[in-house]
Amino acid sequence: MMKLSARTVHTSRYPVLIGEGALDQFRKELKQYRKQKSKLFILTDANTLRFCLPELLSFIPELEAATKLNIDGGEEMKSLRTAEYLWKELVSQQADRNSLLINLGGGVVTDLGGYVASAFHRGIDTIHIPTSLISQIDAAIGSKTGVNVDMLKNQVGSFFAPHGVFVWPGFLSTLPSEQVRSGLAEVAKTALIRDEQFWRWLSRKRVKQILEIPFTDSFWKDLLLKTIRIKLEIVRHDPFERNIRKLLNFGHTIGHAIESLALRRETPVLHGEAVAAGMVCEGFLSVGQAGLDPHELDGVREWILDGFGKLPLLQEDESVRIDMMRHDKKNREQEIRFTLLSRIGQGRINQVCAAEQISEAFGKYYTL
Amino acid sequence: MMKLSARTVHTSRYPVLIGEGALDQFRKELKQYRKQKSKLFILTDANTLRFCLPELLSFIPELEAATKLNIDGGEEMKSLRTAEYLWKELVSQQADRNSLLINLGGGVVTDLGGYVASAFHRGIDTIHIPTSLISQIDAAIGSKTGVNVDMLKNQVGSFFAPHGVFVWPGFLSTLPSEQVRSGLAEVAKTALIRDEQFWRWLSRKRVKQILEIPFTDSFWKDLLLKTIRIKLEIVRHDPFERNIRKLLNFGHTIGHAIESLALRRETPVLHGEAVAAGMVCEGFLSVGQAGLDPHELDGVREWILDGFGKLPLLQEDESVRIDMMRHDKKNREQEIRFTLLSRIGQGRINQVCAAEQISEAFGKYYTL
Repeated sequence: MMKLSARTVHTSRYPVLIGEGALDQFRKELKQYRKQKSKLFILTDANTLRFCLPELLSFIPELEAATKLNIDGGEEMKSLRTAEYLWKELVSQQADRNSLLINLGGGVVTDLGGYVASAFHRGIDTIHIPTSLISQIDAAIGSKTGVNVDMLKNQVGSFFAPHGVFVWPGFLSTLPSEQVRSGLAEVAKTALIRDEQFWRWLSRKRVKQILEIPFTDSFWKDLLLKTIRIKLEIVRHDPFERNIRKLLNFGHTIGHAIESLALRRETPVLHGEAVAAGMVCEGFLSVGQAGLDPHELDGVREWILDGFGKLPLLQEDESVRIDMMRHDKKNREQEIRFTLLSRIGQGRINQVCAAEQISEAFGKYYTL
Repeated sequence: MMKLSARTVHTSRYPVLIGEGALDQFRKELKQYRKQKSKLFILTDANTLRFCLPELLSFIPELEAATKLNIDGGEEMKSLRTAEYLWKELVSQQADRNSLLINLGGGVVTDLGGYVASAFHRGIDTIHIPTSLISQIDAAIGSKTGVNVDMLKNQVGSFFAPHGVFVWPGFLSTLPSEQVRSGLAEVAKTALIRDEQFWRWLSRKRVKQILEIPFTDSFWKDLLLKTIRIKLEIVRHDPFERNIRKLLNFGHTIGHAIESLALRRETPVLHGEAVAAGMVCEGFLSVGQAGLDPHELDGVREWILDGFGKLPLLQEDESVRIDMMRHDKKNREQEIRFTLLSRIGQGRINQVCAAEQISEAFGKYYTL
């Protein structure tokens, strides 16, 4: 018997541009892409087609010539069916391996578009221009792509680095205020797991006050920069989520279960709303399990509840909810694992909690 | 504006075991997997379920406990629909990120199973146990996965390294002889593009004679080893097919077009038959375009025609066929690019041929 060894080393590197000048920079780089690339495609959803594409084209009239791909809006579009539709469109529009797909939109568009690009001809170049706060700081950062299967989130996807990410705060003004608020839950999470100072800076203002700050104010650029920098640092150390990348899941084990249930019932909640509720519940778990000081939790909980209110949490479905957590990709062998806080600015991964503890945390949340 | 930089380095390395002892070695490694992995799945098609799985289980009774996934046989199963079926099966069987998928079958099973594993939860470990000659030397080697879209081959897929590949020549005895012969076309191609000595060694015997050699004879181990070694060497230098990996496409630009057309008409040809015809046609192009000595071509052509006969080549569909080549993933900007031979043992990539040259090559083939 003979043993041969196969080996591949793959390095991906891409720039993330943040701030007022991001689209100008994109315009400059586009000159190169247009020389190198056989064909340009822009993916939008119904909202970004209407509100963001005209803005983008006014900055970069050269993009008029790109082929437009458009899908309806909403989480339910993040499906294999939509991916298949886009692959067939790419085939019929004669996309080839040297085509470029530009994703203009929120997390659904960048997750879906990233996945479509990663698998079309085994990977074509893609650029994210995230337009929602949540995609600017999270979905479009870190090379994860994915679609839902049977309403279970991101069951199918890939790790696939884009060619570049261009984060222009101006797009935030196209969003309803509750969408920006939803993104703030992820910002808070990022601070809570990794950077106490950032949390102090953020929580100095109430959510309502933050939402009144104009997007041209340097506050937003600072917020984007602080959040994205932490995410990139974590991802660089653990791109495939084997260890510390799991830090980012604080609030998400319960948050995802809430979202999946809400999707099934066709009463979707915003991701950030689910994560906000998840962080409060997982905050209770953190006190019991990871040593978080209950007084510290009080401050976090108050800021979240003041900003996000309380979610009905689909109270009657508790067993289903716990069952869905078992389906979460992060879990092994039917255990339910959480990322909890040992203190503000310090997350702790792989914390196993029993179903009773989880029920107790829900109970505390209901009676707040 | 701020510019941050994202960077990921990913190294994958896996063993390829070849020969009589390959399954014994797999059994040893399986002990480790069973400790580390939450759940084992085995994917088969109708043929390997019947002819190969019992053989595998007789070597490795521990695998009885693995969850069996089964699909029908045939190229038309290499579809998004089948991938979706398998993802849903994995979800409902409670596969998690730590599950292992073992693909037992020919190129359809390893391409499809590899793709399903690469995208399920953004990538679970997978092992290939290729059972056809073509998958043992080609499909399962080199980390390409894929499914067809609208009958166009491998439009969707990924580069995804398996955890290991176990090549046991004994499975070849489960195949109809024309399937083994089909694999010999890929063996010949590998020799022709890279290793003149290997070509001389191989072509010393007629195809018919080779097919009479028992699979326990060291001839087969040598053939497998020589072919796999060349493929791994090429892939190591160019995993993502940016340059020299295209060498492997000799005979395939025309071969793929023949296959796609045949699929559409529901009169499928074997991959190797299509590649054999493709090599002869692209041999004519090689003489005109890449300086191949016509006397050298004579020897190649005779060996191929003696072994594979002549394919009807779907003569009347020439314009469709040329159009389909334009869709081939390897082509840029609607040019048709070939890998041709400058001499035996030396391929040359990125050779552009005009439609008239291609027609002329078909013409020569028809009139052979």
